[in-house]
Amino acid sequence: MSKHVLLKGIDIYSEGQLIQNGYIKIIDEKIVEMDLLTNLENEEEFTIIQVPSSYKAVPGFIDVHIHGVNGADVMDATKEALDTMSSTLPKEGTTSFLATTMTQDTKEIEKALENVGEYLQEKQDTGKAEIVGVHLEGPFVNPGKAGAQPLMHIIDPDLSLLKSWELLTNNMIKLVTLAPERPGGLEMINYLSTHGIVASIGHSDATFDEVNKAIESGANHVTHLYNQMSGLHHREPGVVGSVFLREELKAEIIVDGVHVRPEMVELAYKIKRKDGLILITDSMRAKCLKNGNYDLGGQDVIVKDGKAVLKDGTLAGSILKLGTALQNIITYTGCTLADAIEMASVNPAKQLNIFDRKGSLAIGKDADIVILDENLDVYMTFCRGELAFTKGGQ
Amino acid sequence: MSKHVLLKGIDIYSEGQLIQNGYIKIIDEKIVEMDLLTNLENEEEFTIIQVPSSYKAVPGFIDVHIHGVNGADVMDATKEALDTMSSTLPKEGTTSFLATTMTQDTKEIEKALENVGEYLQEKQDTGKAEIVGVHLEGPFVNPGKAGAQPLMHIIDPDLSLLKSWELLTNNMIKLVTLAPERPGGLEMINYLSTHGIVASIGHSDATFDEVNKAIESGANHVTHLYNQMSGLHHREPGVVGSVFLREELKAEIIVDGVHVRPEMVELAYKIKRKDGLILITDSMRAKCLKNGNYDLGGQDVIVKDGKAVLKDGTLAGSILKLGTALQNIITYTGCTLADAIEMASVNPAKQLNIFDRKGSLAIGKDADIVILDENLDVYMTFCRGELAFTKGGQ
Repeated sequence: MSKHVLLKGIDIYSEGQLIQNGYIKIIDEKIVEMDLLTNLENEEEFTIIQVPSSYKAVPGFIDVHIHGVNGADVMDATKEALDTMSSTLPKEGTTSFLATTMTQDTKEIEKALENVGEYLQEKQDTGKAEIVGVHLEGPFVNPGKAGAQPLMHIIDPDLSLLKSWELLTNNMIKLVTLAPERPGGLEMINYLSTHGIVASIGHSDATFDEVNKAIESGANHVTHLYNQMSGLHHREPGVVGSVFLREELKAEIIVDGVHVRPEMVELAYKIKRKDGLILITDSMRAKCLKNGNYDLGGQDVIVKDGKAVLKDGTLAGSILKLGTALQNIITYTGCTLADAIEMASVNPAKQLNIFDRKGSLAIGKDADIVILDENLDVYMTFCRGELAFTKGGQ
Repeated sequence: MSKHVLLKGIDIYSEGQLIQNGYIKIIDEKIVEMDLLTNLENEEEFTIIQVPSSYKAVPGFIDVHIHGVNGADVMDATKEALDTMSSTLPKEGTTSFLATTMTQDTKEIEKALENVGEYLQEKQDTGKAEIVGVHLEGPFVNPGKAGAQPLMHIIDPDLSLLKSWELLTNNMIKLVTLAPERPGGLEMINYLSTHGIVASIGHSDATFDEVNKAIESGANHVTHLYNQMSGLHHREPGVVGSVFLREELKAEIIVDGVHVRPEMVELAYKIKRKDGLILITDSMRAKCLKNGNYDLGGQDVIVKDGKAVLKDGTLAGSILKLGTALQNIITYTGCTLADAIEMASVNPAKQLNIFDRKGSLAIGKDADIVILDENLDVYMTFCRGELAFTKGGQ
């Protein structure tokens, strides 16, 4: 397909406004024009795509917490695994993501990091989801809130180790999930926040006071709200209460109806509003595959009925698609599509400091565009100007 | 003191507006005039009270959950105990209250109810706080959330017993705290709500689904939010999560900084707002007395450092004054005095269906008036037109 593309007659969810019956001109990787269809001139030289008038163009989704999909996992530490993820994710509307590692033997983590680092040395193909960095989930977490992070590999925050890992990835670590209450936690948070890396409180048993210290040190993000964190009590708010109380914290949330009950998604939205939540999948390799047994960090995971669980029943990542999360949060909270886009695209881009080129539909930005049909199902996805997925296509 | 009283030069927090530098005329038990001081005529025949211009007139506080004060307890089942409570409470700005029983042997409860019933047969003295009914806290609660309610006396909701108790009080039971999940709970809630009695979920381990059924049956109130109820979890919201999610539920809250951490008061206010909370004291007989050992329902209670606890450390009521709760919630949440008055006076009056005569400063309503000084300390209290307390007075 040509790199001159014209999307015609579509409702465009651009920054802050809805352009009804509009058009978008894409040249190479960028959006170059966007306006009402009545203002369209110079259609020549463009490949024209015209969709039903009820369809909507929205910014591509950004998944800051995803381990795997379609049989591949970041911990496989292969180019093929990352290729598989990048090629598969546009089907669910994801156009950018953080390759997310998990708690493992440090050698395994290092292999995975080195692999991503090498992958990112070359310019990534258009027409695939873009890896915009690494999310390091563990190993610096609290053994008491391990969840599916293997206990034996959890270690205390180790700044010199982290620095060596940054080198392995050529400084592409963009988000670190850690437990601030562990020895060295605050020091690491301070380092991260002063080096442009998001410090995220997660797999943590922190008290309200400990969370406040983490915020003072620069933490501004929370990993999968509610899951694997100290709960709310009226004399100890815990991490959950802290998220409700402190606006500095943006909260990831897994809106699959399994990790968090729909009403509790509603409550999080009621308190944090659209600016405070970030939709993630936390998905593992079984997504897009059949029910069965799969590996997650050397552990057996059973996937059945929309759930992925360890043998003891512990939830072990999800098989959620980000496009489904978008639909779910609208259903659960009654928010608008525009609000949901904030949580799926705008907020993660801002949090990762890439909002200058991603996260919204605007002239000059990457043409990461998802077209949703009348049911808000993903109909087409463009990744940096190139068509990456068409519903019903091959 | 004459029953013609004129309050001059005071800021009046009347319904929906602030009258700065105003006056209030009281004749007998009622407010008969209220306006800007510049519009005052006919001062003759009135006893004039002029306070410093920074002082504020606010509606008397209504405590829907109070067991005792100054050595007296509703369970003492004596006229003297009720007299002591009515005489003492104006010092903290309380001008009306529900005499609150607790879980005890049914014979003890019956004595207390009969005593209140007899007390309310006669017209209550002006110049004292008015008993506007009974709050029956237990015995129909959940043994798993007993708190300071003695376990051995907890029973399942028993409608015929309740009906016999209504007779004992001449139908003055106005609020019942019960656990909807216990056998007979929903039936009792249905009966209460169709007979003008507030059905309150409290000392309860109900799930979200059970709370929803209780709301469908007519429950619209929750006893001391956070304390002795099922907590919030992301796959089971419990009573706490239900309060956050369901606007139908008005929530009592003990704002002493002991029962609930200030930040969690802030969170409750953030979610429920001024319309959804009701300040209560849940105080016991030790309030206004020295530290020491006291009786609560046949149990030894140790009072020290602002706390009242059983031997095992369980909180056993409070020694909070409602005027202090008003100050605290302003400090904890940053709400305005007008907002705090909604929680201390307006909401309880509306909930008890006595807003036609109490709960706000308005012409024709009972002259239940509290004058607060520049620190929002109670300076004077009028109960149905008669001066009941003056700071520094005898």
